[in-house]
Amino acid sequence: MSRGTNLPAVGGFNQAVILDLIRHHPDGLSRVEMAELTGLVPQTISNAAKKLLDDGLIREGGKRIHGRGKPRMLLELVPRSRFAVGVHLDPTVTTYVVLDLQGEIVAHRRTRTPSVADPEKVVAAMAESIASIIEESEVDPARVYGVGIVAPGPVDLERGIVVDPPLLEGWRNVPLRDALAVATGMPVVMDKDVNAAVVAELWMTGAGERNFAFFYLGTGIGIGLAIGGDVVRGSTGNAGDGGTLVVPAQNLPRRRRSEMLGHLATPQYLVDQAVDEGVLEAAPDPHDLAAVDDAFSALVDKATSGDPDAVRILDRAAEFIAAALVSVINLLDVDEIIFGGPAWGRLSERIRLKIAALVSGSPNLFAHQPVRMTDTSVGEDVAAIGAACLVLETRLSPRPSTLLITT
Amino acid sequence: MSRGTNLPAVGGFNQAVILDLIRHHPDGLSRVEMAELTGLVPQTISNAAKKLLDDGLIREGGKRIHGRGKPRMLLELVPRSRFAVGVHLDPTVTTYVVLDLQGEIVAHRRTRTPSVADPEKVVAAMAESIASIIEESEVDPARVYGVGIVAPGPVDLERGIVVDPPLLEGWRNVPLRDALAVATGMPVVMDKDVNAAVVAELWMTGAGERNFAFFYLGTGIGIGLAIGGDVVRGSTGNAGDGGTLVVPAQNLPRRRRSEMLGHLATPQYLVDQAVDEGVLEAAPDPHDLAAVDDAFSALVDKATSGDPDAVRILDRAAEFIAAALVSVINLLDVDEIIFGGPAWGRLSERIRLKIAALVSGSPNLFAHQPVRMTDTSVGEDVAAIGAACLVLETRLSPRPSTLLITT
Repeated sequence: MSRGTNLPAVGGFNQAVILDLIRHHPDGLSRVEMAELTGLVPQTISNAAKKLLDDGLIREGGKRIHGRGKPRMLLELVPRSRFAVGVHLDPTVTTYVVLDLQGEIVAHRRTRTPSVADPEKVVAAMAESIASIIEESEVDPARVYGVGIVAPGPVDLERGIVVDPPLLEGWRNVPLRDALAVATGMPVVMDKDVNAAVVAELWMTGAGERNFAFFYLGTGIGIGLAIGGDVVRGSTGNAGDGGTLVVPAQNLPRRRRSEMLGHLATPQYLVDQAVDEGVLEAAPDPHDLAAVDDAFSALVDKATSGDPDAVRILDRAAEFIAAALVSVINLLDVDEIIFGGPAWGRLSERIRLKIAALVSGSPNLFAHQPVRMTDTSVGEDVAAIGAACLVLETRLSPRPSTLLITT
Repeated sequence: MSRGTNLPAVGGFNQAVILDLIRHHPDGLSRVEMAELTGLVPQTISNAAKKLLDDGLIREGGKRIHGRGKPRMLLELVPRSRFAVGVHLDPTVTTYVVLDLQGEIVAHRRTRTPSVADPEKVVAAMAESIASIIEESEVDPARVYGVGIVAPGPVDLERGIVVDPPLLEGWRNVPLRDALAVATGMPVVMDKDVNAAVVAELWMTGAGERNFAFFYLGTGIGIGLAIGGDVVRGSTGNAGDGGTLVVPAQNLPRRRRSEMLGHLATPQYLVDQAVDEGVLEAAPDPHDLAAVDDAFSALVDKATSGDPDAVRILDRAAEFIAAALVSVINLLDVDEIIFGGPAWGRLSERIRLKIAALVSGSPNLFAHQPVRMTDTSVGEDVAAIGAACLVLETRLSPRPSTLLITT
């Protein structure tokens, strides 16, 4: 229950603080500047920096002239000193990345996600992909901290199990984390895809005390959350399901499965609508996710070229998404909405500004604070990158909770 | 941005850890037991305990025999060593409490909430009530840490302003916190009512790593949140608004203002429904909140005595509340729902179990984790008590974030 803190914990924490600071100052920082920024005394800074220098995570770079004093030695990150592998298991494709400390992708690979007839075979194939992407990246395997694997929920994070994601055929109670650790010989951490996207955003662009919702559009819809600069995982690691948020019934199309966001704004649903309304000709087999994805692209293309029915379908999706986001903003008082996920990139240009206008103009917004609404700067592979960030963060992030002694 | 930690911060933190531990062990704890529970070394425990003993917050109590060793001295809380005042400004009544360290109410008072024609007068009257409730409690004013004041949102916590609560007539941009600090000569902290209810729950029954939603039924509806044992206030302190969550349109009564929870399950709305459906005879003046409250009591009484129309109205409210809670559970993966607030006590016996059954039986629940659903153990004055807890927590709570140096 209550846990205290002590000096070894403090030492490690301060190292992490220094590393974090250096990581976010690509031009380097002097020890004096670090003392000013952290409130730590110079001796503490020097001790922490020495350990990081010894470990090769940072190096002395140029010097900075500051007033009349003697030029100050700058410390900077050694981006290629450590790496992490990220794997994103999506119903359609599986993405592998090798990430360096700076968050740059060193190697990248995509494969079709297999349905699981034989879990052992799947795990063996994944381990092989991991080994070969590390090899391809020409990175010293000893410098790879480990593997992050992320999957759609529900997940069982305590036991490292992919429980039963609606669209991942055969993936039922697969103990992916531990099996992958055995198969790769590396430490493996697991998370839910949408929450890994939040981790990516925090790691890459800075955590601070940020409060945001990450609207994640993949095969399904997730709404990941950061509160006070930390990802919200909830009691079982399954936070972030935004698909059951209900939207107002006005403007609902006649044929619909329910009033839930997850049935009204996914690529599959939008394609169904387009077929119903004659915008697309043939309905793709809903089990052929690649075909659904192609049809979704075709729908967006039609809207882009001005087809009024296609435009209307996407505009309606924007209304549903905006309505759900207003509820989320009121509940959590977030001041940023970040959009991303594999299917979002194609939609963004068509509906992001519309969503933003609908949200900020909503008479239902409670606190009237301005809400920034932007696309993720991390890109389409945000979940895979988040999986790798998860590993880096576990090892290197200065979170106050790491100050507590584990009894 | 990044902040480090140092020894003075660690010392204060460990004292807070020890105090928290003792507070939750009413039978006392020995220093050895504390070392076991916290992972701190005996010397650190002794130092922290000495400071708390010197300050009179704890005392040496009995001894506990443990095996063959010499009996161990127990340390226990001195509940009446420090106090805090809590004030809850509700549209209907204003509640004042004086709370001791153990969370016991030492003095209690209710007054009608005035509409604000002259803010200065209102603040002067509040300060007078605070002075007189402290006097009545026979508590040494020097032992009162300060005042917590909570109000319906929207609030501006940074500036300590009650912005413009829908039902508080004339309360528009009143700088209540600072005015009250001047008028009382005491430190004043402010919060939104529903979030203070969360603080009360955490302080009184233990924070741990709890994730819960607090369904707060007052004049309006709030859904306060605790994530990882900490209250969620959001970017501007206005988190906790659950009134704009949309509920499914099926089962909606014909006459309704919208599909939002805040228009479907408040006392005012339920009374309107009851009048519409002939359960209650005369509609109370909606501006006379006391009359609305009486009519609400009459409706619940009718349901209790078996009036089928009254039962149906409340059952429908249960359905709306359950639907909204399912969305919240899916979004945040909380495993506890706590119910409370001034209007909840009357409804609980009629609908809590029904809500619980609807939530746990919902086909839309994402993670299938069991969710505990209970009434708050803090009682009807949960927001006023929370206001006082806010003061105690600010002074005494061991939160890792307090370890960070403020630069």
